[in-house]
Amino acid sequence: MSREFVRVDLDRAARCGRAEAIFCEGKLPGEVAEIAGILRASGQPVLATRAGRAHFDAVVARFPEAVWHERARCLTIDGHPPVGNLTVGVVCAGTSDLPVADEAAVVLESFGHRVERITDVGVAGLHRLLGEQERLRSFAVLIVVAGMEGALPSVVAGLVDRPVIAVPTSIGYGANLGGLAALLGMLTSCSSKVTVVNIDNGFGAACAADAILRLAAVEKASV
Amino acid sequence: MSREFVRVDLDRAARCGRAEAIFCEGKLPGEVAEIAGILRASGQPVLATRAGRAHFDAVVARFPEAVWHERARCLTIDGHPPVGNLTVGVVCAGTSDLPVADEAAVVLESFGHRVERITDVGVAGLHRLLGEQERLRSFAVLIVVAGMEGALPSVVAGLVDRPVIAVPTSIGYGANLGGLAALLGMLTSCSSKVTVVNIDNGFGAACAADAILRLAAVEKASV
Amino acid sequence: MSREFVRVDLDRAARCGRAEAIFCEGKLPGEVAEIAGILRASGQPVLATRAGRAHFDAVVARFPEAVWHERARCLTIDGHPPVGNLTVGVVCAGTSDLPVADEAAVVLESFGHRVERITDVGVAGLHRLLGEQERLRSFAVLIVVAGMEGALPSVVAGLVDRPVIAVPTSIGYGANLGGLAALLGMLTSCSSKVTVVNIDNGFGAACAADAILRLAAVEKASV
Amino acid sequence: MSREFVRVDLDRAARCGRAEAIFCEGKLPGEVAEIAGILRASGQPVLATRAGRAHFDAVVARFPEAVWHERARCLTIDGHPPVGNLTVGVVCAGTSDLPVADEAAVVLESFGHRVERITDVGVAGLHRLLGEQERLRSFAVLIVVAGMEGALPSVVAGLVDRPVIAVPTSIGYGANLGGLAALLGMLTSCSSKVTVVNIDNGFGAACAADAILRLAAVEKASV
Amino acid sequence: MSREFVRVDLDRAARCGRAEAIFCEGKLPGEVAEIAGILRASGQPVLATRAGRAHFDAVVARFPEAVWHERARCLTIDGHPPVGNLTVGVVCAGTSDLPVADEAAVVLESFGHRVERITDVGVAGLHRLLGEQERLRSFAVLIVVAGMEGALPSVVAGLVDRPVIAVPTSIGYGANLGGLAALLGMLTSCSSKVTVVNIDNGFGAACAADAILRLAAVEKASV
Amino acid sequence: MSREFVRVDLDRAARCGRAEAIFCEGKLPGEVAEIAGILRASGQPVLATRAGRAHFDAVVARFPEAVWHERARCLTIDGHPPVGNLTVGVVCAGTSDLPVADEAAVVLESFGHRVERITDVGVAGLHRLLGEQERLRSFAVLIVVAGMEGALPSVVAGLVDRPVIAVPTSIGYGANLGGLAALLGMLTSCSSKVTVVNIDNGFGAACAADAILRLAAVEKASV
Amino acid sequence: MSREFVRVDLDRAARCGRAEAIFCEGKLPGEVAEIAGILRASGQPVLATRAGRAHFDAVVARFPEAVWHERARCLTIDGHPPVGNLTVGVVCAGTSDLPVADEAAVVLESFGHRVERITDVGVAGLHRLLGEQERLRSFAVLIVVAGMEGALPSVVAGLVDRPVIAVPTSIGYGANLGGLAALLGMLTSCSSKVTVVNIDNGFGAACAADAILRLAAVEKASV
Amino acid sequence: MSREFVRVDLDRAARCGRAEAIFCEGKLPGEVAEIAGILRASGQPVLATRAGRAHFDAVVARFPEAVWHERARCLTIDGHPPVGNLTVGVVCAGTSDLPVADEAAVVLESFGHRVERITDVGVAGLHRLLGEQERLRSFAVLIVVAGMEGALPSVVAGLVDRPVIAVPTSIGYGANLGGLAALLGMLTSCSSKVTVVNIDNGFGAACAADAILRLAAVEKASV
Repeated sequence: MSREFVRVDLDRAARCGRAEAIFCEGKLPGEVAEIAGILRASGQPVLATRAGRAHFDAVVARFPEAVWHERARCLTIDGHPPVGNLTVGVVCAGTSDLPVADEAAVVLESFGHRVERITDVGVAGLHRLLGEQERLRSFAVLIVVAGMEGALPSVVAGLVDRPVIAVPTSIGYGANLGGLAALLGMLTSCSSKVTVVNIDNGFGAACAADAILRLAAVEKASV
Repeated sequence: MSREFVRVDLDRAARCGRAEAIFCEGKLPGEVAEIAGILRASGQPVLATRAGRAHFDAVVARFPEAVWHERARCLTIDGHPPVGNLTVGVVCAGTSDLPVADEAAVVLESFGHRVERITDVGVAGLHRLLGEQERLRSFAVLIVVAGMEGALPSVVAGLVDRPVIAVPTSIGYGANLGGLAALLGMLTSCSSKVTVVNIDNGFGAACAADAILRLAAVEKASV
Repeated sequence: MSREFVRVDLDRAARCGRAEAIFCEGKLPGEVAEIAGILRASGQPVLATRAGRAHFDAVVARFPEAVWHERARCLTIDGHPPVGNLTVGVVCAGTSDLPVADEAAVVLESFGHRVERITDVGVAGLHRLLGEQERLRSFAVLIVVAGMEGALPSVVAGLVDRPVIAVPTSIGYGANLGGLAALLGMLTSCSSKVTVVNIDNGFGAACAADAILRLAAVEKASV
Repeated sequence: MSREFVRVDLDRAARCGRAEAIFCEGKLPGEVAEIAGILRASGQPVLATRAGRAHFDAVVARFPEAVWHERARCLTIDGHPPVGNLTVGVVCAGTSDLPVADEAAVVLESFGHRVERITDVGVAGLHRLLGEQERLRSFAVLIVVAGMEGALPSVVAGLVDRPVIAVPTSIGYGANLGGLAALLGMLTSCSSKVTVVNIDNGFGAACAADAILRLAAVEKASV
Repeated sequence: MSREFVRVDLDRAARCGRAEAIFCEGKLPGEVAEIAGILRASGQPVLATRAGRAHFDAVVARFPEAVWHERARCLTIDGHPPVGNLTVGVVCAGTSDLPVADEAAVVLESFGHRVERITDVGVAGLHRLLGEQERLRSFAVLIVVAGMEGALPSVVAGLVDRPVIAVPTSIGYGANLGGLAALLGMLTSCSSKVTVVNIDNGFGAACAADAILRLAAVEKASV
Repeated sequence: MSREFVRVDLDRAARCGRAEAIFCEGKLPGEVAEIAGILRASGQPVLATRAGRAHFDAVVARFPEAVWHERARCLTIDGHPPVGNLTVGVVCAGTSDLPVADEAAVVLESFGHRVERITDVGVAGLHRLLGEQERLRSFAVLIVVAGMEGALPSVVAGLVDRPVIAVPTSIGYGANLGGLAALLGMLTSCSSKVTVVNIDNGFGAACAADAILRLAAVEKASV
Repeated sequence: MSREFVRVDLDRAARCGRAEAIFCEGKLPGEVAEIAGILRASGQPVLATRAGRAHFDAVVARFPEAVWHERARCLTIDGHPPVGNLTVGVVCAGTSDLPVADEAAVVLESFGHRVERITDVGVAGLHRLLGEQERLRSFAVLIVVAGMEGALPSVVAGLVDRPVIAVPTSIGYGANLGGLAALLGMLTSCSSKVTVVNIDNGFGAACAADAILRLAAVEKASV
Repeated sequence: MSREFVRVDLDRAARCGRAEAIFCEGKLPGEVAEIAGILRASGQPVLATRAGRAHFDAVVARFPEAVWHERARCLTIDGHPPVGNLTVGVVCAGTSDLPVADEAAVVLESFGHRVERITDVGVAGLHRLLGEQERLRSFAVLIVVAGMEGALPSVVAGLVDRPVIAVPTSIGYGANLGGLAALLGMLTSCSSKVTVVNIDNGFGAACAADAILRLAAVEKASV
């Protein structure tokens, strides 16, 4: 049985404004390199998520300009042109949440957006978070990443007027249930405007923020 | 023990652009009427969600201009001034999801936004949904309400470029688990830009859409 | 089959420092009145929790001095003598959590402790909570009651040095799962010293606080 | 304690129309080879599922004609004679679902049925799926394999009149809960005629399709 | 806000071979009567499921020929012409499962199929079940309805060669978890060809059986 | 910190009729050998469950008469004197359940009871089970081990008058949920006299059977 | 559709030693009375469980000798002849567990066994339980009923040598999860010989005890 | 992307009375050594939890005075000065719970408290536990660690007047659900004053005990 290969959607960039991203989990290094080759051949940037070292090695062998974002587990070649001049704040509570926060940040940068990060502002030490209030209010969209009880998005959303996208992480143990505690906490947030993506889904949060920023850019351009 | 009363946050409108909404569940009709009175006294519009007939009766006795949105279980007096001219599409699959879709729509209208509704476009009858593609693409933000397997947001998000906020409903039985099946389905959507709010939370979806539209309006005004 | 009656543990006050409390759920009004009579006959104060109006009516008919705490669903006759002069802070986020907070407060007062309440300090509006910091730090023990995502105990525990007992409530809907979301959130709190009791268990939180305060009183008396 | 061996049901082919299949999980390579030998000795075809490389090595050493279906994790020697001329469509959304889809296809082919595969037709990209409508309608039975939110069977069932058997896969993470999200989604499908088998159970779906096709063949032959 | 009405899909009968069924839950009696009227006006039979007494009263007032199937909670006017001469066996273990079994049977009869029922053949009393073996083998398709541990479909599927559709019911208490125990049992059945529908979903089982029988009828007619 | 050692309850044999068993999971091989030594020194038989090869190697080095029951993961030295002449039937459906069935059998034999095994009598092939009816009825107590949907104990209990102890196993995948499906199925069995132990707990089932047989032996001896 | 009636298994008494019991839930009062009539007509005793007042009224109208056990929700007419002279201990912790304990006791008495009850011996007050040690050790079989954390069976099983059947009850709230906490606690008991039945299933526990006692009686008679 | 490092909160000791602890999970050995260096440079003691051998090796290379507590998975350098002269009792049932009990004990000792341990006092062997009653009553605070059904805290709390903090462990299998059974059991304890921390969270229990002891010390000092 020969292995039929995944169809690459080369028209996506034209249709949606950005190229198709490669989800590496379950794909062989060679397959990822081949898809990267197809995208490059048509002049598109490459973004691969959930990429391991082996995926990167296979790609960089063909495209030496490929960049490896280790903690984010992302791989990029070029990126999309800038979209407006708004900034996304990627906020998280502790070092354990950084891989997910990084994935969101790398994806947004690849999509042509400005990103600023605030880390180590957990709700158990409010003075750090309150010291960042001004910066928090300067962001157009906020992605708030949190594990354990997942309370950070509720608190942040109470401090800003802009859209807040919450990303639960699987950091924790026991009653954390692999991130379910944080996920449920975010869904039942007392801050009404918080929306939520799947556990550890930094990529999804970045895509949602991208859609918001593109809408804002279109509105600005429409004047 | 005398009953201390809920503090009404009258500065919210100035601070956040819109007045505090009243969540009626667990409040006595007289309490809702009293809060409505405080808001009216300071010249603010009134929006009460999860309102029953008794809540409405208590309010309309004091404010004959109060409007009752039965299926949405909302009660409004006046509304906020229009915010930009973008339209939110509120999309749902069947008649059972209408109360939640209505809540989202009434809240958005009260917040000063334009809303259009598309109903009866379930994924089991794609021809109806595909017949609405053009309208779907005309919306700035989409709120997609669905019970049962909750597949509609995935399909809709594949047809449009704009932000999609998914609202699972508790419609269904058995393996639906009170809306959990739809909630989990939306969180694991294969359409990467979908974000999700709690089960039956039309109000939260409207607040998230409001934050996006206010950002777009600010951007437009900033030119 | 004649109904054997619950044995009343009259020695408990001597053995443990406080009389047995009556849990009314599943008991007939007459039964509660009879137990109250046995306790009174031996000169002990009466505390009944989860008491309905009918339970109170049956008791007050025999003991006109009985007091009805409606929202707390408690019934008391007399109380224990004061234990030290420390104060327990009972803190909650919204009006819906008041019945549980009240149960904790009434029980503590019946046990001979001072109680102060702070309500309406949810994490989505930090300015209210921060305005109460000084009071929060003045308490010897804090009972923090919260529904929805249950984030309040984490935030409060970050602001004080004293023991914090968290009580999740069943307030909420959908992904709240009848209080489980708040419970899991509190158990996975990033504030390490938070301990947790069962959903809606204001009585248990009061008993735990009572044990802490009695230890402190014994220590003080031992000098 | 000597190891009593699994009884091989050699009469099954006569009784049910097809030979017993070997489920390799938990069986040693030598055991699988021995069962294969017993089946071959009585002139029956061999089908082993959940077979690893070691199982295949043990079997091919004795039966060089054995065929290894790597991605499907199946091993076959010969197959059953053709049953009618109807075709089963095995449909899935992405490359990650291919192992389960392959298992269903290999099993059906071993049972004597025609199979056609359609892959990469996820609900987030309807244009691909709609481009295959005619083929979808040409199948007598459809096996639809999907992970994540498991929406594909609902959509496919809305496009065809024939029986649709849904197979959830464990592909996904976080709120996917090891395939439970897809399973619940399929069970609560808004397309009423969808039936469901266990997570990753391509074999079970093939058996159910086989029973349907044998009924149709009997009916045709009865004229 | 005027109430937009559910669109009735009158072309369904032409497109799919049978008219749209009315799901009464969440619909007002008058609405059901109105939909029935639209279907009758275009000469189609009426089938309404989850119908209460009030729904029936509203319909029979306009259509005296309407029939009320109380235990099945179904309402019918006319039915579809016969489809072939195969028989569906609807099998269940006890009287408590009869409402779900009846729903399946009434729906199938309305769709033009022959139905035979076997009740009171639980797995704890095998002699009754074994006494019906011959009849079980005479059915073209079997719908097996069971609550509690849901073991009946496994046992029945071991006795017959034809497709078996399992319907878990919510009958039971405690560890039954509202039918989840039966549902999980059926999904993990050791009889490989069993497929499953949602808890209490007699309608869905009937629709799946209908699709199988129509395929068989088409095959027979194609000779 | 020196490692305080587990206290061995040497009086157990005198007090309860049988010596303490050693649960090896989480114990080092040397620790198990040491406990075995203490038991032997006081003339007691040794039974160790959940024992790995390393545990056996450590024990057999000191006690060459130790016996290794590989599939049961048990290790024995001597055994208790026979208790009566009743026989326990240990029944299971497939080869995958044999390790758990073996644990129950080895433990019972070590406790001084007669055991007979019936394997490969799954509910999907009733003819095998029915062929063993006479033997099933000859047992004083039955331990029925089953994974997947766990239906075997219900069926067996319907065929015999004696106590039936059900042991769910973790055999299965997907909706099996690590044995929970079988566990829930057994708890909701329609055969009223079935009692249940934890998943994979062959040891517990043997202890329960032992208690029943000792009662019967005492009764017999009391005449 | 006329209502086919449940078949009454009149041979059960001959076959199994006791008559069929009537499970009233879901049965109409008249149906219960009719089944009672059939049993009486063939000279058998009547035992009906989960019986409401209306069921009793219907039965007592025809059989004035019927006895109503209100708290146990049982109804009996006559009973079976005594089986041996062993006593079952039915033990529970609090008044809330009495209905389930009563069901077990009434059923056992109807089956011809001696029963003694011990109530109000919760694990939080060990002195009461320890005061009953001698009586506990006098029972041939123990049925231990407990809600909340379900710890009582573990403690009791540590004090006696006889079979212990644990019955979790749905008494409790919040994390009790309708009795699941007690059920899981009993299944994971550190006392190895405890077996468990479904939540609130006093009837099942009685049936299991009955099977044990009949075995003992047969053994005694066999000497 | 350079790796921003975790901010060390050096003021914590001044602010809260004790230095920040290092949670090693997810941190590289070098990172832990570096944080230890920062703490030592400011003259603070070091406490690292969830530390593996590699973490210890990295730290001891720089600080030879570092102590390795293998079973507790803790690493300490110095400790805090003694706080009062009260003793915490750390109680557990079996050897498998020792790692969690040890973590609690090591953390408390590092915080300047006296600790005594009681092990091997499971509820299935009450005589051992009752033999320790006097010691149990001598503790100011009790930390009770238990896996399986988690009944020990309920029983202990019934024997003492002081605060009881319960720690469920993940010890067990099957229905234990990774410690959830013990967690739920402790939350629904019939001993009202028990509070609970997350599964395996010995550190959190120690922090809660520390807060109680510091309150008592302050009270004593205030005389």
